[in-house]
Amino acid sequence: MDTTLLRVNGKRLRASLEQMAGIGATPGGGVQRLALSDEDQKARDLLVSWLRDLDLGVTIDEMGSIFGRRPGRDDSLPPVMMGSHVDSQPKGGRFDGILGVMGALEVMRTLHEHQVRTERPIVIVDWTNEEGSRFAPAMVASGVWAGALERDWAYGRTDLNGKKQGEELERIGYKGKAPAKKWPVHAYYEYHIEQGPLLERQGKTIGAPKGILCLHWYDVYLTGEANQVGPTPMEGRHDALVAAAEMVLAVNRLPARMGGNMVATVGEVQCYPNSRNIIPDRAHFTVDIRSWDDEHALKAWELAKKDFQEIAARQGTPMRLEETWRVAHAPFNEKLVQRVLETAGQLGCSSLHMVSGAGHDASYLNQVCPTAMIFVPSIGGRSHVEVENTSWEDCEAGANVLLHCVLTSAGER
Amino acid sequence: MDTTLLRVNGKRLRASLEQMAGIGATPGGGVQRLALSDEDQKARDLLVSWLRDLDLGVTIDEMGSIFGRRPGRDDSLPPVMMGSHVDSQPKGGRFDGILGVMGALEVMRTLHEHQVRTERPIVIVDWTNEEGSRFAPAMVASGVWAGALERDWAYGRTDLNGKKQGEELERIGYKGKAPAKKWPVHAYYEYHIEQGPLLERQGKTIGAPKGILCLHWYDVYLTGEANQVGPTPMEGRHDALVAAAEMVLAVNRLPARMGGNMVATVGEVQCYPNSRNIIPDRAHFTVDIRSWDDEHALKAWELAKKDFQEIAARQGTPMRLEETWRVAHAPFNEKLVQRVLETAGQLGCSSLHMVSGAGHDASYLNQVCPTAMIFVPSIGGRSHVEVENTSWEDCEAGANVLLHCVLTSAGER
Repeated sequence: MDTTLLRVNGKRLRASLEQMAGIGATPGGGVQRLALSDEDQKARDLLVSWLRDLDLGVTIDEMGSIFGRRPGRDDSLPPVMMGSHVDSQPKGGRFDGILGVMGALEVMRTLHEHQVRTERPIVIVDWTNEEGSRFAPAMVASGVWAGALERDWAYGRTDLNGKKQGEELERIGYKGKAPAKKWPVHAYYEYHIEQGPLLERQGKTIGAPKGILCLHWYDVYLTGEANQVGPTPMEGRHDALVAAAEMVLAVNRLPARMGGNMVATVGEVQCYPNSRNIIPDRAHFTVDIRSWDDEHALKAWELAKKDFQEIAARQGTPMRLEETWRVAHAPFNEKLVQRVLETAGQLGCSSLHMVSGAGHDASYLNQVCPTAMIFVPSIGGRSHVEVENTSWEDCEAGANVLLHCVLTSAGER
Repeated sequence: MDTTLLRVNGKRLRASLEQMAGIGATPGGGVQRLALSDEDQKARDLLVSWLRDLDLGVTIDEMGSIFGRRPGRDDSLPPVMMGSHVDSQPKGGRFDGILGVMGALEVMRTLHEHQVRTERPIVIVDWTNEEGSRFAPAMVASGVWAGALERDWAYGRTDLNGKKQGEELERIGYKGKAPAKKWPVHAYYEYHIEQGPLLERQGKTIGAPKGILCLHWYDVYLTGEANQVGPTPMEGRHDALVAAAEMVLAVNRLPARMGGNMVATVGEVQCYPNSRNIIPDRAHFTVDIRSWDDEHALKAWELAKKDFQEIAARQGTPMRLEETWRVAHAPFNEKLVQRVLETAGQLGCSSLHMVSGAGHDASYLNQVCPTAMIFVPSIGGRSHVEVENTSWEDCEAGANVLLHCVLTSAGER
């Protein structure tokens, strides 16, 4: 058959997305499907049953990542891979991650329905714990698969209740036997919502990021001195929260001070004992710095550290810094990025060559094989929130771009 | 007998304090005996059994406050009252509150042992929920007793788990039948640790506060806009935590800007969703302002509000303010304060005329009857923490001052 006329079934894609949105649905219209929770387990079970319906060869690896393999005419060739993740942020949205898995599933269904045979095998993947909001860091399973992170270290990461990632994998029945270890892949495509405002602002349907910003995560721990607030004069206080507040503002000012393409954010703060009439004696907060230029981000951190040291010394609140995680910026494969732009054009979609501010499993895949992403617009630029939204038309358009990018790559000898 | 030679039994006082410190003992050497918790119940049961051992008439009022009455020669005269509270802060110390109850118990035991008869009745009291850290506000039962707060409103106050104060009173068996309503009292003495550094710094044993600073509590709620941090440019963000951080610093600067005797503190902060890669869309924090001058404290709040409004407008984070609680400064009865100073002198103790920065049940009692307090030094000025400490010698000295102040007042016709 002439596969150039092939199109995904937009209604079926929407139905699958809506069924998934019912697993962990929140009253505010979003989903909460934290990695390795009962909701994650349910979503995985549903995905696996759908993969089996298509006669795909299903494999679970040691990190719980789910692979569904469709044979190629020459099954010895490295496959084309596509996918994303089914886990979500706490009170996250109905599209982040799951769109890339349901889009890939819809591609598989379309190929199955039309009995399309491809030269290379095609693999759909759901990567475990992309979000990192229950167990830090994010993108852990693709990181282990790519050889950038250690499996046993990942198993030992704990959530706020002290539960270990490895034990939770086992609990939900997704600690597979296949080694979480890279194998040759011809091309990896990840389809995802943009999570930013650019496509919408510029009126474009398809985004083709040239790569992903670097991502640096830090943790700051401060120790002050607790005391009853009334009888303790201002002078001589060691207030951990006051020191933390100064540091939060120092982080917020970093991008303006450094110039260039960069964002810096404090998303999380804890204060102890957190009682209104006790001077806080401990505070913890996180720092997230991202830029296309890794060196620029490192220089920003050095500047922040100097600020922090000055503040901690002045406030008398000793500080401990943890350099929790660093992922270098990831320039994607130029040929594949061009293919996404060209395929969009062939399908009559407007497109934008851009960068991705968010980290994705594609960052790690990019270390292993030619990689590209396909973005569709986030309404209002909102994501990681319950009101996260993308139009059904754009969801369908992105899945068609994915279909034809995959078909082209899977036809290459 | 010549009661001027009467002294409390310091060893017995220490033993009672140590036994109480075992109820809710924390690994760090403090206690956690939150109001109306199982630990509070245990401490109350022990106290009541001790009161019964002394043949005191025990009454529990509707707010759970425990009264133990020792008859006077003329039992129709208004009694002298002494006491404090047995509840503690989360991870609080072994002296705050409980010293005033165990000190009063030791006075009762000493009178009992020596079969001392007094003209007026003497009442020991444990006021429910002085701390306010589980159910806000603090000093709730003495407030209801004094007529400053409504009983049913107090019953309806909830803790972080949504449990109601009234229901928890019932659960632990301390919702009594006696009306929580003031009756004539000749004099009220509250014995307490200083909770500040002044007595220690000046090498004095007994503090006689001329009164208690005013206490103003506020709650600030901010709404921002959540978004994935990577793809969201700094410009156009509405970060609730950045706004809160600016406000925390504005509160911290208030005393220096206002001048005069004043402290201002943010002890508690919450940030939502509190995930390191999401821009915070909600923040809540508390403000605590204290001064001897009520007008000065109100002016400080007006200044803070102006700062907050400017910050909220600039950051695009709409704000809701709650004026949660205001207690006016409480000048104690001058005659009783002088009596504390003189009694200390007669017992050979050095003393200091001072103010109390912390609120106490004495603030509300002061609205009903002549009131004074007796302070002993807090080592390092530390309180509301596990390392809170006072020497056993000072504990005994304060109890002797309490004994003789009470004897003098109870001898007055």
